[in-house]
Amino acid sequence: MRIDAVLTALYLCLPVSAMAQDKALIQCLNDKFAQAFNEGNAAAVAALYTDDAVILPPGGEMMKGRNAIQAFWKGATEHLGDGKLTTVDVRPLGSTTAREIGTFTFRTKGSQTQEITGKYVVVWEKVGSECKLATDIWNTNK
Amino acid sequence: MRIDAVLTALYLCLPVSAMAQDKALIQCLNDKFAQAFNEGNAAAVAALYTDDAVILPPGGEMMKGRNAIQAFWKGATEHLGDGKLTTVDVRPLGSTTAREIGTFTFRTKGSQTQEITGKYVVVWEKVGSECKLATDIWNTNK
Repeated sequence: MRIDAVLTALYLCLPVSAMAQDKALIQCLNDKFAQAFNEGNAAAVAALYTDDAVILPPGGEMMKGRNAIQAFWKGATEHLGDGKLTTVDVRPLGSTTAREIGTFTFRTKGSQTQEITGKYVVVWEKVGSECKLATDIWNTNK
Repeated sequence: MRIDAVLTALYLCLPVSAMAQDKALIQCLNDKFAQAFNEGNAAAVAALYTDDAVILPPGGEMMKGRNAIQAFWKGATEHLGDGKLTTVDVRPLGSTTAREIGTFTFRTKGSQTQEITGKYVVVWEKVGSECKLATDIWNTNK
């Protein structure tokens, strides 16, 4: 899919059912996530989630709601950077939701940086004219 | 929901859209999963998944297909037992799929047993007359 077609689809905010069929479109949203994260902009990351989204991070309890999600990612940006998300598979579920499987890499900050690799499952939902993360769970490969 | 109503719904294999609205029904399927696991019956666990299901275990790469899933759970039953799955939230996605959030506990086998607690996200899909796990990802709380 050409980037201009992707951007047009994003601009028009096509229904998730159409969007979900296109990995490129979800990849664009993931790039937006990674860019905001790498800039340390936790508010912009949190804005990509639904109001009542649930995140299930490794090493802690699940969290619900945008405030909790923003606080979580704020903490994460202090320790991690250079994030990259890669969409592997997208399956539409109904007309307004989709299940995405993807992989990620981050780098720890500090003098001895380490690469962290892992995978995630996201359920995307259409909210008004936008597509947002509603459920987000991940784990690391090591 | 009374257990006889749950069993009747299971027997009739109601559509996932109806099923997904009922945590009790998914809890029943999870109890079946835990029972098979605790008996070391990896084939019965794998039979609960769709043919092309994807599991995303912590500490390794994602795996696809029932053979890989059976082999994974076979290995897990050698180290873990006393499994319990608890459905926390179920959201229908379209007419034949649902997203479940749940928690789990297991105990390590051996002389010094440890409890392992965590959480998971499963996408359930209706396959013929049965409801099966299509995407399964989890992580631990510590």
